[in-house]
Amino acid sequence: MHEFELIKNYFQKLSSKSSSSLNLNDDVFFEKENRLVVSVDTYIEGNHFINFKKPGLVIKKIIRSSISDLFCKGVKPKYYFISASGNKKSFSKENMFKISKSLNEEQSKYKIFLSGGDTVFSNKLSFTITSIGFSKNIIYRNKAKIDDDIYVSGNLGDSYLGLLVLKNKIKLNNLLTKYFTNKYFKPDVQLKLTDHLKKFANTSIDISDGLLADLDKMINTQKLSYKIYLNEIPISKNLRKVLDLIKLSKINYVSNGDDYQVLFTAPKHKRGIIRKISIKNRIKLTKIGIIRSVSKKSLIVDDKDRQITLKNKGYFHKF
Amino acid sequence: MHEFELIKNYFQKLSSKSSSSLNLNDDVFFEKENRLVVSVDTYIEGNHFINFKKPGLVIKKIIRSSISDLFCKGVKPKYYFISASGNKKSFSKENMFKISKSLNEEQSKYKIFLSGGDTVFSNKLSFTITSIGFSKNIIYRNKAKIDDDIYVSGNLGDSYLGLLVLKNKIKLNNLLTKYFTNKYFKPDVQLKLTDHLKKFANTSIDISDGLLADLDKMINTQKLSYKIYLNEIPISKNLRKVLDLIKLSKINYVSNGDDYQVLFTAPKHKRGIIRKISIKNRIKLTKIGIIRSVSKKSLIVDDKDRQITLKNKGYFHKF
Repeated sequence: MHEFELIKNYFQKLSSKSSSSLNLNDDVFFEKENRLVVSVDTYIEGNHFINFKKPGLVIKKIIRSSISDLFCKGVKPKYYFISASGNKKSFSKENMFKISKSLNEEQSKYKIFLSGGDTVFSNKLSFTITSIGFSKNIIYRNKAKIDDDIYVSGNLGDSYLGLLVLKNKIKLNNLLTKYFTNKYFKPDVQLKLTDHLKKFANTSIDISDGLLADLDKMINTQKLSYKIYLNEIPISKNLRKVLDLIKLSKINYVSNGDDYQVLFTAPKHKRGIIRKISIKNRIKLTKIGIIRSVSKKSLIVDDKDRQITLKNKGYFHKF
Repeated sequence: MHEFELIKNYFQKLSSKSSSSLNLNDDVFFEKENRLVVSVDTYIEGNHFINFKKPGLVIKKIIRSSISDLFCKGVKPKYYFISASGNKKSFSKENMFKISKSLNEEQSKYKIFLSGGDTVFSNKLSFTITSIGFSKNIIYRNKAKIDDDIYVSGNLGDSYLGLLVLKNKIKLNNLLTKYFTNKYFKPDVQLKLTDHLKKFANTSIDISDGLLADLDKMINTQKLSYKIYLNEIPISKNLRKVLDLIKLSKINYVSNGDDYQVLFTAPKHKRGIIRKISIKNRIKLTKIGIIRSVSKKSLIVDDKDRQITLKNKGYFHKF
């Protein structure tokens, strides 16, 4: 059963009793009265991260993944809580030193503060991160409008290639290995974009499960579809270089998760302000498609407007 | 390494960078500016609960344990988040139905709302609960004063006997089995007391690890000691009945955890108002000892004022 089906079927009724609830149908919880924005995520070894050989990098990835949920909604996170389950080895003095050093760096970079949590013994290593911010309003899911442009920030696919390198499925030279594994462990969370997002975005989500999986999530209660132009999807020069050399096609890279870029829609008349903000603040924002009525099928097309079919749309947490 | 030592050594420096931090040295995080109060706790099968044979009861215990952290500080929880890790069997349709039913009952009883969370696949069953409330102020740890009276709410020890029954270490008749296991799964979280606590308490904590362990925690940065009168520690009629029959002494029951009663200190001149509030609102509040200077040793004494020695002071999450 998919993660959100499980939540939907059993928990939605409970959450609907709160007036400020988003019915668990968004990445964050938002409560207007107290301006509260909360995100809670769990990360498990072997599932959300490969192993704990590099605790300092793993903890960075986890923290960024969590705070990304707030940044992509136009909200700055302020506090975070870590609940860590693991054994003596995972939380050895050496590892704790690396974890603390990394957290200190993330705190400076993103202006966030460790505010509590829990540590318990378990033979299974996992972390639950609670991120909290304050905002008068947020950008919701499911607020796209027909004919909206679809944008993404930054580049897609680097993180997935980094994962393949870490899993020894692709071998690259040292320089490229470092570049892609860094993108996997330290995704470029859109700190600067957050201040501007509310000026133009109708709806938004961060790309954690994969471009298409998250597109589906972003409009999952709306009677809408999307058309995405594969050629428009932004990738890094390094990924372009690798794709020119190896067999796998671009779509396999850009449709997998862990990019933590912002996916959003905006009305056509906002194109000017988006271009201005993008240039002025040096934030890469790329128009990759359009929102359409549900009478048309959701699809992704190549440069000859031919539909591309995909085996899967990204990553789901399966039960 | 004890849970709080681990946190202290490595995480305290990080949290001290926030002006509103309690240096991770309290059960909740409190931020005055936004009136935010947060508690995060993780519960693991085989550690914090025996097994998942009764999912509806286990989930109640977990939720109450989490919100108790706020109630004992004079704060009403409003929202809670569940991050659940487990396998298909743990989250079967049948179990999810029972869990939802229980959560619905807890929501009505404590006026709390499920506001989000995460569900991930794992071969190890665990839950992380984030509870959030709003308050202008809270009752802190480490604010006891010399000569303060020490109080507890309700009765102690029932929950521990329930645990022993569930572990088949003690056999009781059906009626008593039901009584004590109910106390274990559904501890009497002090909903009514919360409204009054700030009128008299200098400092407070909930008893989750055990009376003496939590007493130590409550004053852990203060140069103070305590004297507790074993005879004054309130126990239920049913526990009295059982203690009259079996060998184990009272101290073994009342010094173990999972009671979720409120432990607090109050100045002597508040005795009148405490008695009044106790009677008027039918909240059992019992004076069990006094706070003393650090020049005297922390101790627990019997009816002849002889010191009682203990093997351990309660439960710690060990790494």
